[in-house]
Amino acid sequence: MTANGPDLQTLLDEITLAARPFAARGRVADYIPALASIDGARLGMALATVEGELLGSGDFETRFSVQSISKAFALALVLAKDGDALWRRVGREPSGNPFNSLVQLEVEHGVPRNPFINAGALVVVDRMLAHTGDACGTLLDLLRRESGAADIDVDLVVARSEATHGHRNAALAHFMASYANLESSVVTVLDHYVRHCAIAMSCSELARAGLFLARHGVRADGTHLLTRSEAKRVNSILLTCGTYDAAGDFAYRVGLPGKSGVGGGILAVIPGRGCLVVWGPALDKSGNSVAGVEALDRFTTSTGWSVF
Amino acid sequence: MTANGPDLQTLLDEITLAARPFAARGRVADYIPALASIDGARLGMALATVEGELLGSGDFETRFSVQSISKAFALALVLAKDGDALWRRVGREPSGNPFNSLVQLEVEHGVPRNPFINAGALVVVDRMLAHTGDACGTLLDLLRRESGAADIDVDLVVARSEATHGHRNAALAHFMASYANLESSVVTVLDHYVRHCAIAMSCSELARAGLFLARHGVRADGTHLLTRSEAKRVNSILLTCGTYDAAGDFAYRVGLPGKSGVGGGILAVIPGRGCLVVWGPALDKSGNSVAGVEALDRFTTSTGWSVF
Amino acid sequence: MTANGPDLQTLLDEITLAARPFAARGRVADYIPALASIDGARLGMALATVEGELLGSGDFETRFSVQSISKAFALALVLAKDGDALWRRVGREPSGNPFNSLVQLEVEHGVPRNPFINAGALVVVDRMLAHTGDACGTLLDLLRRESGAADIDVDLVVARSEATHGHRNAALAHFMASYANLESSVVTVLDHYVRHCAIAMSCSELARAGLFLARHGVRADGTHLLTRSEAKRVNSILLTCGTYDAAGDFAYRVGLPGKSGVGGGILAVIPGRGCLVVWGPALDKSGNSVAGVEALDRFTTSTGWSVF
Amino acid sequence: MTANGPDLQTLLDEITLAARPFAARGRVADYIPALASIDGARLGMALATVEGELLGSGDFETRFSVQSISKAFALALVLAKDGDALWRRVGREPSGNPFNSLVQLEVEHGVPRNPFINAGALVVVDRMLAHTGDACGTLLDLLRRESGAADIDVDLVVARSEATHGHRNAALAHFMASYANLESSVVTVLDHYVRHCAIAMSCSELARAGLFLARHGVRADGTHLLTRSEAKRVNSILLTCGTYDAAGDFAYRVGLPGKSGVGGGILAVIPGRGCLVVWGPALDKSGNSVAGVEALDRFTTSTGWSVF
Repeated sequence: MTANGPDLQTLLDEITLAARPFAARGRVADYIPALASIDGARLGMALATVEGELLGSGDFETRFSVQSISKAFALALVLAKDGDALWRRVGREPSGNPFNSLVQLEVEHGVPRNPFINAGALVVVDRMLAHTGDACGTLLDLLRRESGAADIDVDLVVARSEATHGHRNAALAHFMASYANLESSVVTVLDHYVRHCAIAMSCSELARAGLFLARHGVRADGTHLLTRSEAKRVNSILLTCGTYDAAGDFAYRVGLPGKSGVGGGILAVIPGRGCLVVWGPALDKSGNSVAGVEALDRFTTSTGWSVF
Repeated sequence: MTANGPDLQTLLDEITLAARPFAARGRVADYIPALASIDGARLGMALATVEGELLGSGDFETRFSVQSISKAFALALVLAKDGDALWRRVGREPSGNPFNSLVQLEVEHGVPRNPFINAGALVVVDRMLAHTGDACGTLLDLLRRESGAADIDVDLVVARSEATHGHRNAALAHFMASYANLESSVVTVLDHYVRHCAIAMSCSELARAGLFLARHGVRADGTHLLTRSEAKRVNSILLTCGTYDAAGDFAYRVGLPGKSGVGGGILAVIPGRGCLVVWGPALDKSGNSVAGVEALDRFTTSTGWSVF
Repeated sequence: MTANGPDLQTLLDEITLAARPFAARGRVADYIPALASIDGARLGMALATVEGELLGSGDFETRFSVQSISKAFALALVLAKDGDALWRRVGREPSGNPFNSLVQLEVEHGVPRNPFINAGALVVVDRMLAHTGDACGTLLDLLRRESGAADIDVDLVVARSEATHGHRNAALAHFMASYANLESSVVTVLDHYVRHCAIAMSCSELARAGLFLARHGVRADGTHLLTRSEAKRVNSILLTCGTYDAAGDFAYRVGLPGKSGVGGGILAVIPGRGCLVVWGPALDKSGNSVAGVEALDRFTTSTGWSVF
Repeated sequence: MTANGPDLQTLLDEITLAARPFAARGRVADYIPALASIDGARLGMALATVEGELLGSGDFETRFSVQSISKAFALALVLAKDGDALWRRVGREPSGNPFNSLVQLEVEHGVPRNPFINAGALVVVDRMLAHTGDACGTLLDLLRRESGAADIDVDLVVARSEATHGHRNAALAHFMASYANLESSVVTVLDHYVRHCAIAMSCSELARAGLFLARHGVRADGTHLLTRSEAKRVNSILLTCGTYDAAGDFAYRVGLPGKSGVGGGILAVIPGRGCLVVWGPALDKSGNSVAGVEALDRFTTSTGWSVF
């Protein structure tokens, strides 16, 4: 791929340029002040390849709030420890349309539909707490080591802002607790959940950190975080459940496993090739970056690097 | 792949042997007599490669009722004609759990969630009728040409049996008609729908017929049924929606685009490599072949040929 | 009550005058042309007392399409025959909000929630067919005898118009048939259902016809259609389920058992006193006559004749 | 009614005797230890008449946990202050079947369906807090004054037990808070809610306390808690929403406005005549006292004192 380096750099630059105007079709998340103040027109894109190259374009070195992208890493950490036993606590099916979230929790007796809806991510945090006692710290450690950026941390302004707007997550946590599907206290789970969503990273840092998913589970230091089979499984859940209620649309347009966050980031895995991260804060109705999805769509169309 | 031929044949034989006992965990579909009489212990597996090879094991030349597998071919035919205009009539998101089917139709004003739930397949048939006037005939023509088996046909015993048990499909069709989301009459749509599900084919015929999805849209005669991009899109919908309410589980275990039918068949696409079809009539709770999913799981684990 | 006669007449006249302007807040049902052409400003009110008096005001002698009001009479006829065995086929609980209709049918395996939602009324018609072979004819006979108007009949223009817009009812009927909760054919049930909703009657005719519900089950000829206990039971279902999704609001404002129809009529029962019918074609969002509910509210507030 | 006194006493004794065996068909609430230890075979019945008589039979002077019966009194207190403005915060329609509770909250943007489902009762408590700053204290004051029993109080063992099992109510409260439909803090609302459900009273005390609902809003001291119209309105909500998901069945069998609690009590209003309270701890599937409903059914059948 070194040979392709220059071409890929040109491609990223072209795509960043072409996709940026799409931001005008979206809206920056405004449910907390700390996110609402971000300039929606920013756009960055970074590709970390399995050969060790890192290419970037636009605002690819600006840190932003990773939000739900943290859930992909949390799932990997928990699956590495729990294996298939995890699936007694959370499902792995797409969630259907949004209004079902609560009724599904009720119909399925407090077992969330997948690890990426909020209820499921709370269960994953609860499992991390059971394993290490410090869910957010364990996650930070992974992100710092894989990205090589030791100063990655929680944005406390965002975390505090989320905490004071967190009635809905509190409702979900209490609801699961009523079905005995949380082991730690509701307060502790919510605290770690809020903080692990408020981690700030750049496209380049996220692309390096997620590279193990493209390398069939192998970490930066050559050890295995996941087996080949487990890495495939995380990728399959990313593809079917990683982009909220638009997973079908994302698979259709982009054709890669991916995880989005309301901070405007999207992490996409190109199995065997690399990890591609975009950031554009203006979101579509489903909560995915408008310019980001457009950029990924153009990238896979140009390269043919979809999984399909 | 010719070099791999002998090894692949051995692998198919081993997998067929190992997966067959799993049939005991399932039940043959019994909602119509014509299906209930099939021996649940049968198992066949066929692989058609993009290089033109055909390998098979077990009952791979026995014809069975393709049922919902026909929906994958119908979607390809309609997408080739309608392009993205199709998505005004039907969605492309996974359907969540089964009890939602009707409420989702209601919430979404008669637009089915995806082309593979029954309501969505009725819309696809309605589109085929608009294009050719003979939905079932057009589909038969495609299947015969791609598979090279000119005698593929509707099993009229199965078709009649379905028709007399079809109140639920009639309800769906009338419900969509009440939202003006059917152009042909309810009776005509149901007739073509029932017949196109009652087509009988073998694993080897289906594997050859589905090969265009692994060849990026290219038919047996070298012409394009679909563009490369359209083929990718059909595969993405197969992966996210192709196996009823177990699409997440199928992606997790098998990691391939696939379409199952209650006749016990599953067609899986290995993009760029081939089309793999299994048949085992005993079904799990979600309506997928128990031994079939097991065989596909073993195949992708052994070969590494998952998309992830 | 004869003594009150003059006062009641004055009251009806005052109420009709005061309630008429409320029609401006509603809309005439427009889903079929035969109903859409009615003047929304019309308003009639009739009271038949258990002593045999009939008082009326406004357009109380104009016939209109009774629509769902027929369901109250159908329920009485079926309960008289089936007794509590009826409740194996249909429930008697309020239906919650409208979008639940289909999901409730699914969750409750084809047993409609109560006899007044369309699905439940189809079951009641199916029971009438089982008893007499002619559901609509049996109902017409009851209405003619109780009201003394031998020329009451189905408005065939309305019936035909409904039939061609009946996909939703057809969906419900097929859906229940899929759960084996219809004995007659879908086509027959729908035919009788549509016709029994298209009966045309005036306020005065309906008030006389419904008097048996105020007389604890006693018909005009002194015989019992229902026992005292059965009449009480029909009234309780009218109160809890008789006005679509606004039963709670109707009970709160009016405080009487009542049944409304999208033709703009409302039949209210004053147990032990009489039967009060209003007609005003402009409907609120729930499908109840705006001026009609207003008139009934004023009537019970003035007389204190609520059941509470 | 003094003349009827002896006959009514005999009737109550006969009914208590006949209904007691029905307890065997139910189960005592066991979700908290403090309730689970009650003897399910106990049965009491008390009637307070508008003339000032009090009749009782069986365990009518034993105090039990009033649980949701407190919601009827809370509603009266809040409606007296807020009038129809209350209905911007909570609906007044029956709730359909239980699994809808949360999805309805979601569909209706945090506005509970009626004041008697838990979510709605939390809103009512929130309103009481806004009015007086001490919801539970205000309610206790009303109950003590109306019943004449100054020592009525919260059972702290029950209250503590509820509080430690209250994840579901916490979920509801946080969920409504996420829609800004709570003014006080979640913790304060839950505290007052739990305590006002844990008040202990006997049948005779409850019958006296509820008499104002039969006297069109007039309290024991002759002052008005509610206007005649407001009293009618509380009764209408009791009838359509007062007995959980069995309101239709209760209206059908008993035909009186009523409010039940999982402690086994049911308070029924006979407008213009009296207030009838039964207590039998064994509950049916809907959470209503089995022997209690049976007793009320027999009472209204014998006396004809249903509202219908």
